[in-house]
Amino acid sequence: MKGLVHVYTGDGKGKTTAAIGLVIRAKGAGLKVLVAQLFKKDSGEVRVLREIGITHMQFTSKHPFFKNYSKDELKSEIKKCKAFVRNIFHKMKDEKYDVVVLDEIGPALKSGFFEPDELASLIMSKPERTELVMTGRGFPEQILKLADYVTEMKMIKHPFNKGIIARKGVEY
Amino acid sequence: MKGLVHVYTGDGKGKTTAAIGLVIRAKGAGLKVLVAQLFKKDSGEVRVLREIGITHMQFTSKHPFFKNYSKDELKSEIKKCKAFVRNIFHKMKDEKYDVVVLDEIGPALKSGFFEPDELASLIMSKPERTELVMTGRGFPEQILKLADYVTEMKMIKHPFNKGIIARKGVEY
Repeated sequence: MKGLVHVYTGDGKGKTTAAIGLVIRAKGAGLKVLVAQLFKKDSGEVRVLREIGITHMQFTSKHPFFKNYSKDELKSEIKKCKAFVRNIFHKMKDEKYDVVVLDEIGPALKSGFFEPDELASLIMSKPERTELVMTGRGFPEQILKLADYVTEMKMIKHPFNKGIIARKGVEY
Repeated sequence: MKGLVHVYTGDGKGKTTAAIGLVIRAKGAGLKVLVAQLFKKDSGEVRVLREIGITHMQFTSKHPFFKNYSKDELKSEIKKCKAFVRNIFHKMKDEKYDVVVLDEIGPALKSGFFEPDELASLIMSKPERTELVMTGRGFPEQILKLADYVTEMKMIKHPFNKGIIARKGVEY
């Protein structure tokens, strides 16, 4: 089975959860799965993913879209982010994962935490077997071109407009 | 916490998986979850959902978008579908679920397997606490109006155009 490249992007709900649902399906079918999350600390799904034997790794830096970094801090965080993403591609190869999620890699590209050129060459040299799932806003055309599946989650209606606050177990 | 109403619709990938990812997150946060799937038999996710203690129910009739029913068969299937959906709303109340998924209820509405009027009144009288997540193409405006979250999964690129066939663990 040839592994394809998926992108979930757009301003709507369901980008990360679609990736998580996909790995649950993959795990149910006996596949080996790695979920790498950027800019997230304690999503409700992490405990369950680990419980069912999905490898989970996270880069817990503050989200670049809401950043408030000093110049030095920023430089050091970008360095750590680059090492994190490169390591995911190494693990993909060395440990023969069937499905790998790079959650919120879109914003990393958008904000200079990772270079689109480098990601493009990592994607092009990924193991043939590995299904790669990338999420978040902000993917450049260069990366979308390399994807087999691109889905835009479009917000039609959102309750935050009505002043509802993010709730653990639903929004994160 | 007030339970909201979510709709994932559109022609893109990720409607069901977004619902599944959401319940994984909810389960991780200790919430009580019921997943009801229409027109599906053996999605890869079912085994995992049951393993982690999520209630899973399915109405396994053929998908109405690909139907080839005789008139009598159709009548009987519609009757069964109606009973299935009504039962889900009863369970929602009686067993105090925090999150309930009605996967592929959109096509059921579109194809006359369930009446939009009845669904609207069931939604309006659902337990206040319950978060309700509905998926699929074909929701009428009447139902979308009752939703707090509406996300359209828009297909930007799809490999089926390139002749790739649905693969267990990824597409279903």
